[in-house]
Amino acid sequence: MPLLGAGLGAILAPRSIAIIGASQDATKIGGRPVELLRRFGFPGAIYPVNPRAAEVQGLPAYPTIQAVPEVPDLAIIAVAAEGAPDALEGCAAKGVAAAVIFSSGFAELGEKGEALQARLREIAHRTGIRVLGPNCLGAASMAERSIATFSVVLEAGMPQAGPIGIASQSGNIGSYTMLLARERGIGVSRFLTTGNECDVNIADGIAYLARDPATRVILCVLETCRDAPRLIAALEEARQARKPVVVLKIGASEAGQAAAASHTGALAGSDAVADAVLKRAGAVRVHSVEALLDLGHAAAVLGDRLPAGRRTMLLTASGGFGVMLADAASAAGLALPSPSEATQSRILSVVPYASPRNPVDATAQMSSRPEILAEILAALLEDDGCDALLLLLSASLYLPRLRAIYMPTLRAVREKHPDRIVMLAVHGPADAIAELTAMGFPVVDGVDASTRALAGLCALSDARRVPAPPAPPAPGPTIDLPALATEAGAKQALAAAGLPVLPERVVADAAGAVAAATSMGFPVVLKIVSPDLPHKTEVGGVVLDLRDAAAVAEAHDAMFARVRAAAPAARIEGMLVSPMVTGGVEMILGTKRDPVFGPVVLVGLGGIFAEVLQDVALRPAPVEEAEAMAMLRSLKAFPVLDGVRGRPKADLRAAASAIAALSRFAAQHAADIAEIDINPLLLRPEGQGAVALDALILPARMEHPA
Amino acid sequence: MPLLGAGLGAILAPRSIAIIGASQDATKIGGRPVELLRRFGFPGAIYPVNPRAAEVQGLPAYPTIQAVPEVPDLAIIAVAAEGAPDALEGCAAKGVAAAVIFSSGFAELGEKGEALQARLREIAHRTGIRVLGPNCLGAASMAERSIATFSVVLEAGMPQAGPIGIASQSGNIGSYTMLLARERGIGVSRFLTTGNECDVNIADGIAYLARDPATRVILCVLETCRDAPRLIAALEEARQARKPVVVLKIGASEAGQAAAASHTGALAGSDAVADAVLKRAGAVRVHSVEALLDLGHAAAVLGDRLPAGRRTMLLTASGGFGVMLADAASAAGLALPSPSEATQSRILSVVPYASPRNPVDATAQMSSRPEILAEILAALLEDDGCDALLLLLSASLYLPRLRAIYMPTLRAVREKHPDRIVMLAVHGPADAIAELTAMGFPVVDGVDASTRALAGLCALSDARRVPAPPAPPAPGPTIDLPALATEAGAKQALAAAGLPVLPERVVADAAGAVAAATSMGFPVVLKIVSPDLPHKTEVGGVVLDLRDAAAVAEAHDAMFARVRAAAPAARIEGMLVSPMVTGGVEMILGTKRDPVFGPVVLVGLGGIFAEVLQDVALRPAPVEEAEAMAMLRSLKAFPVLDGVRGRPKADLRAAASAIAALSRFAAQHAADIAEIDINPLLLRPEGQGAVALDALILPARMEHPA
Repeated sequence: MPLLGAGLGAILAPRSIAIIGASQDATKIGGRPVELLRRFGFPGAIYPVNPRAAEVQGLPAYPTIQAVPEVPDLAIIAVAAEGAPDALEGCAAKGVAAAVIFSSGFAELGEKGEALQARLREIAHRTGIRVLGPNCLGAASMAERSIATFSVVLEAGMPQAGPIGIASQSGNIGSYTMLLARERGIGVSRFLTTGNECDVNIADGIAYLARDPATRVILCVLETCRDAPRLIAALEEARQARKPVVVLKIGASEAGQAAAASHTGALAGSDAVADAVLKRAGAVRVHSVEALLDLGHAAAVLGDRLPAGRRTMLLTASGGFGVMLADAASAAGLALPSPSEATQSRILSVVPYASPRNPVDATAQMSSRPEILAEILAALLEDDGCDALLLLLSASLYLPRLRAIYMPTLRAVREKHPDRIVMLAVHGPADAIAELTAMGFPVVDGVDASTRALAGLCALSDARRVPAPPAPPAPGPTIDLPALATEAGAKQALAAAGLPVLPERVVADAAGAVAAATSMGFPVVLKIVSPDLPHKTEVGGVVLDLRDAAAVAEAHDAMFARVRAAAPAARIEGMLVSPMVTGGVEMILGTKRDPVFGPVVLVGLGGIFAEVLQDVALRPAPVEEAEAMAMLRSLKAFPVLDGVRGRPKADLRAAASAIAALSRFAAQHAADIAEIDINPLLLRPEGQGAVALDALILPARMEHPA
Repeated sequence: MPLLGAGLGAILAPRSIAIIGASQDATKIGGRPVELLRRFGFPGAIYPVNPRAAEVQGLPAYPTIQAVPEVPDLAIIAVAAEGAPDALEGCAAKGVAAAVIFSSGFAELGEKGEALQARLREIAHRTGIRVLGPNCLGAASMAERSIATFSVVLEAGMPQAGPIGIASQSGNIGSYTMLLARERGIGVSRFLTTGNECDVNIADGIAYLARDPATRVILCVLETCRDAPRLIAALEEARQARKPVVVLKIGASEAGQAAAASHTGALAGSDAVADAVLKRAGAVRVHSVEALLDLGHAAAVLGDRLPAGRRTMLLTASGGFGVMLADAASAAGLALPSPSEATQSRILSVVPYASPRNPVDATAQMSSRPEILAEILAALLEDDGCDALLLLLSASLYLPRLRAIYMPTLRAVREKHPDRIVMLAVHGPADAIAELTAMGFPVVDGVDASTRALAGLCALSDARRVPAPPAPPAPGPTIDLPALATEAGAKQALAAAGLPVLPERVVADAAGAVAAATSMGFPVVLKIVSPDLPHKTEVGGVVLDLRDAAAVAEAHDAMFARVRAAAPAARIEGMLVSPMVTGGVEMILGTKRDPVFGPVVLVGLGGIFAEVLQDVALRPAPVEEAEAMAMLRSLKAFPVLDGVRGRPKADLRAAASAIAALSRFAAQHAADIAEIDINPLLLRPEGQGAVALDALILPARMEHPA
């Protein structure tokens, strides 16, 4: 595999471009790049290649790539799918550094197309030519006027050059992002769509943008992940470069995931896992193109400034809008502390009838004289409890009188408080927005959009503080998979990995059961031991609360007979005798192997909390204990563990330790183990620890039972 | 009180208007209406009133309202607050039918302003003049060119006349709604802002619009509710008129509610109660101005057509956008069934590489020839499983080639399927949107906005099918409040109201307890009976699971001593002996009296579900059993009652019957009872009923304990 992001310069900043399949017709995909490159003034050489024309759109055309008088940096391949491999082979033979393949008709069509695409991949890997696509919308760089795309969005003009890089698997969504950027006057550095990813994938794009001096913020549209380690490495590179990455990962719902799997032809990992992985890697996720641009714009304007926390002061000239801002800010997870008494006094000294708490309603007085707004803003920005300020101007700037008050005041505020975060919620006009943006204010339209973008900035700030992900642990010592097939075997392995289990014994007959029970003390639990019966209760293979020897002996024989009858073919290795333990909270703790992102660990409260209410926390494995603690705290039912309404506080440290130990074990044995279920993990009151009452380990080969 | 909505014609369709405080300066609030009325061509007479000018903006001015040569229908009062009562008195004396008071400085400033506002209210009620405001932004009617507002939004032009009526308590939010309507080309009938509501309130506005032939859809911005019965009556009038009501109720969050209470100076009811009341009354709630207009527009375009259900077919030319639509549609609660095999075959017959399931990705082929799109649309619209279709065109209509394909095809589809619901998600251009709207397509910009608007249409459709709210029950027979102060008394009253309780006895001593226990059978529960100890467990006043006579006797005396020690002053009336009942699911069932909307009933699962996870269902009381059943089904934990994972199904009918009975009791005794808690209501397996194991009734006088 080529190094992450290597060779993308030839795609995004080529000095010369050949177009194979160049067309006279500027509306065709082979004609559009020729027309766009000329219209927007690409400064390098443009070489149309077309065996049936001596001239294309006024430029001399060449019958083959070999006939082109120099070796171009980049070739655009816009021929029918069947011809693409030969065209690519020709480019490689010529020594072209990279190719962008627009053509569709590859893996997105199933097996036949898959074979054709494999040929492209083989050529790329054999010759070293970098290939973007196929079935992609190509790439463009704004400052360089380099256009290797047929995106119709450029028909109406290029976005202005600026600090936002766009890397999208989806051509249409990436293109639409560029359209909204142009409409909103948001500056774009590069635009890259990776389509079927036969060679260059989204991770390469992110890594390139992380190194690109023209790019300060990376916007990424993710449909699927074909190579998780590279994606994670690319995100880490962006974090090292202190470049915010905002990800629109589509396929959040079940219906969306099904559609994404069918659309991309790639394995569909779980969205919850992708979410956790992105978060762990410091990327901030959004759910719409509009939110992608709002947050990208805000991050780009602020540069290295980000809110230190979520304490947000809301300021409006309207009580009603203040209420809406408070609703939206609460929903977005922002905190709305009251300003200090001193701050409130300062506000009331200039507007006696203001509502000086948060949201601050400065009434229409705010716009009556510049010094009033200036003083209120200064009071709030100088308040110790203010991490960020959100000022709502709605449509005020359309009015010349208000604009004349607001603009110079805001300019002065920026000069006086250059480090503070002030987000503006403004509905037009465009020239005022451009002016405010140039002053260094992020400007977003609308109550919901502005509060959401501000919360996104806080998430980006959090991401800066997350430590780099731990390196995946070295594989552990070989494990004896067949031995793990019973509860007893699984518990032994987990105990060795540091998980708390009970002193238990496997016995061969009723007498052995009675002896074991007597030595460990009553009451006890008796469970069937069989590698063929992972779900013991379903065959009557569990009896609880046996209080004396007679009960144990009777239960042993009855259970043996019951299980035999229920599952005549099952191999029975004996009975497991355990002390009966009660008291505490039942948790479920487990791992599973995501087909895309590998092993993840999850935890929730037992019973219906996890199963019905879906109240579980999930992280890529391994996790340290601090992160395990954060997982527990993120549960909606966390108050149950934390001593709500007089309950005893649960032993959270023991739970965190068990989560971390299990996650390490799963990561070490990722190749062998598909899934581990500890259900329940009994979590006792503080200081009394936790204990795994049952355990099931599913080997990797059983992941997809026939 | 005047009849609901009476006399608003003089405000919204006056034949002549006087402006008291008319100013030469068109930027002042007394000058703006004069300028706007003339600019937009108000056909009636305009009478500036100003004692210091003979002429205002070129019109003859009058020193007083009395000097005006006719009796105008409407007076605008734009003088300082202190002068407003005299001005209003003058108008009433002249015989003016209605006044709009722009002036601020009333109840929004607290006590002093409250007194001034009371004078306005007194004049209105004494003389019958209808008063809009004070502290409001006034009103306007588009077709009539009647402008009694100083909203700056009109500076840039009026919205076009159309079927959407806007009634807003907030001047700023209402005004911003009008601005967005103008920008988007959405037609508006009337605009009314009610401000401090000294006389005309939001319910009058809704009722007027419900009767107004020019209005087909009512958009309402609600900050608070000052008169719940009138609001509910107005909403019911709109429902009878089959006019959709979309409500932007602000103050959804705690922070927002606090701000709303401070901003409006009105009682803050619970947002959850307001939500339930609005839903019960058939209004559909949204949470942003953008969503208000999107849904209002869609409902106005569709007229009487609404989706019969939530089965939605999604159609795009882009796999990525299809995934996003599926995500957004799922989040909005739409259902995405697969088209039938026959429908899928029809799609594949025109686009072999389409993804024919839902979302349908018709690929770029969709735009290659009109007959392809026509056939795919026909296939989906003729599918029996399609209640509505959402077609995403994103920015395609900017391209002349695509526009030439899409527009005639869509026109033909509308003609062929005039009754089907087809929502379009389109990002410009404006003239194409206007053309599509004129064809009868609701057009909304963006993935999230379009799916949300479609889900809103489904909610409006649901609202049509909800039966009219039951009339509040006649007050019940007088209840003996002091007798309800103990659990035993409360249970007797509830049993009489139809709630299931256990056979229980209050006893005076240990011997009585033993006798009672023996006659009802062991085990039993013993509880202290005292009107002074509503929380019995806190004083050790409950002992469970007493298994024989000795245990009962001992527990009786021990409890007596314990409670005496813990609460020496409490009056102890005896002990309650009850059978010990176990098995089943513990529910909590209760009522409380909302300060704005009156009694509501709520239900949830016991333990942490209600308290920690806030998983409760709430409705205005009374509810019928069918609605009670819907409450149960709306619980996130409902699967626990419905037999999830082998649990027994709970007796849902018994629970619904208990909810309905309690809600009737609370509604009948709304004047006397503040709150009822049945915690727990033990809900047994199907066919075994439910039983109230504990009950607490809080009389109204204890609602706000000193």
